[in-house]
Amino acid sequence: MTEFELIARLKPLLTTQPGVVHGAGDDCAVLTAPAAECDQLFKTDAIVEGIHFLPDTEPERIGRKALARCLSDIAAMGGTPTAAVITLGLPASPDPVRIEAIYRGLRDLAERHGVALVGGETTTNPDRLLISIALLGTVPKGRALLRTGSRPGDAIFVSGELGGSILGHHLDFEPRLEQGRWLSELGCVHAAIDVSDGVAGDLPHLLATTDGSVLGAELLKSAIPIRRAAREAARNPGSGKPPIVAALTDGEDFELLFTVAARDAVPVLDGWKARFPEVPLSCIGKITDRPGVWLRGEDGLKPMIGKGYEHFR
Amino acid sequence: MTEFELIARLKPLLTTQPGVVHGAGDDCAVLTAPAAECDQLFKTDAIVEGIHFLPDTEPERIGRKALARCLSDIAAMGGTPTAAVITLGLPASPDPVRIEAIYRGLRDLAERHGVALVGGETTTNPDRLLISIALLGTVPKGRALLRTGSRPGDAIFVSGELGGSILGHHLDFEPRLEQGRWLSELGCVHAAIDVSDGVAGDLPHLLATTDGSVLGAELLKSAIPIRRAAREAARNPGSGKPPIVAALTDGEDFELLFTVAARDAVPVLDGWKARFPEVPLSCIGKITDRPGVWLRGEDGLKPMIGKGYEHFR
Repeated sequence: MTEFELIARLKPLLTTQPGVVHGAGDDCAVLTAPAAECDQLFKTDAIVEGIHFLPDTEPERIGRKALARCLSDIAAMGGTPTAAVITLGLPASPDPVRIEAIYRGLRDLAERHGVALVGGETTTNPDRLLISIALLGTVPKGRALLRTGSRPGDAIFVSGELGGSILGHHLDFEPRLEQGRWLSELGCVHAAIDVSDGVAGDLPHLLATTDGSVLGAELLKSAIPIRRAAREAARNPGSGKPPIVAALTDGEDFELLFTVAARDAVPVLDGWKARFPEVPLSCIGKITDRPGVWLRGEDGLKPMIGKGYEHFR
Repeated sequence: MTEFELIARLKPLLTTQPGVVHGAGDDCAVLTAPAAECDQLFKTDAIVEGIHFLPDTEPERIGRKALARCLSDIAAMGGTPTAAVITLGLPASPDPVRIEAIYRGLRDLAERHGVALVGGETTTNPDRLLISIALLGTVPKGRALLRTGSRPGDAIFVSGELGGSILGHHLDFEPRLEQGRWLSELGCVHAAIDVSDGVAGDLPHLLATTDGSVLGAELLKSAIPIRRAAREAARNPGSGKPPIVAALTDGEDFELLFTVAARDAVPVLDGWKARFPEVPLSCIGKITDRPGVWLRGEDGLKPMIGKGYEHFR
């Protein structure tokens, strides 16, 4: 199978949307410019065989995950995704049935969120499959949820549950797009991020301020929403990781972590529960002016255990 | 070195431009929407160690090439590049000095063409370095140069010279951005593409019409501009490829190939020579209504020799 034959098989899977003037098939895709009252969001991300998925992972779930990770970043900015381009790094003699199934998984999620797939590049990556995606989105001008902006006293919220993602959540998670948009419309969020390297790894990103000073955070151990999978994994002999540690340090939760002023905490919680009854929202602590992340448990206040998922270790 | 330490070293190399509201460092980049009288261009491309560059290729030239390939696609649409995001797939224990040099090469070319680098993702690609880039651009609404639109009788032009790119041109070529914009402004180009898989591989893309019929082309052998490197390579024992074959089938020329009505051929040629005296432009043949690509030489008219560079072979 040549590159051109493979592309011919994949091209019908590239879904379109209004706003696409010319999709895949030319040197570039041509898109209508977003409305002038919007800012544009731009993000890239890649997943790699043996790192983010396994050779025997169902191909539809591989494709789904590749796009869902980028969608989660758009969600964390409060935006709406619009168009994506896909680069496949393919091992020698790629299996066209597998590649088509990857594209189907990707296409299904794209269609559900109104994302046009406007370009699909293929290249050779001899040793393993790699999928790189670049995604565009829009957000009303000036309303993007940024990582900077937390203030001492802010309440810290996290959506969903944390930890044990490796047991399946990392493939099947729902990017929190509706929730991110709702938060952006609320207008009271100080700072936001999507949790991809664990709360322990990502919360520090919400502690940098624009004036260069560094804030701290105090988390309430009993308030951390622990995913059932994190508890199950802890029961495996040899796991060696208590559920609370898994919840704070495992990667790939893809939940929203954000801060609001203390006075807005209850209205945000009530509004969220009315709007998204199926998605838990937990107030897990507060921002402090004492640098560092601290965990309050039955045994008092202690520095945060462990670190989030770090690459290259 | 952790991922975060590497990112901290690379971040100062991410160059910005007006129109970037928030560059790298958040979940997504935030950009001002392009002007309403523009369409937006969107493209992705990747280069891989051992395929598009070698382990001992100077790192600045690797970074330069990664971006230049995408710029060439924007050029072929007649557009202006605006912002890029970069994904690095890094082998275990990446050499930070090499990665920084790659970024410098990329940054220098970006600055020269007014491209903001608004996001830099890193992931692990254990066996070899991979660089994936996604690039945005703009083009006045409705003025993008497309691949479809050739008509029987059109003159076929190619910029620069062809073949032997492997001897250095594939790393150091100049994306034809100014020339592409000039052609778009002229308004008389019927179809255009950048030559990345050889004229033999890419000319057929200009022969598809919107109504589904297929055109043909007749090239004049003596008019093909053969790069000196293609002649030099042919003198190497064991090359086995005459210069004319190299010129038509070697990959990575990154020149503009386009068609205009026969009556516009001389004005285009004269205008180009006045505007871009340093860049050759050759009329290499004409579009016909007889399908297939034919080469006219001293020995008469023969079907095109060979094919362009095909991946996975």
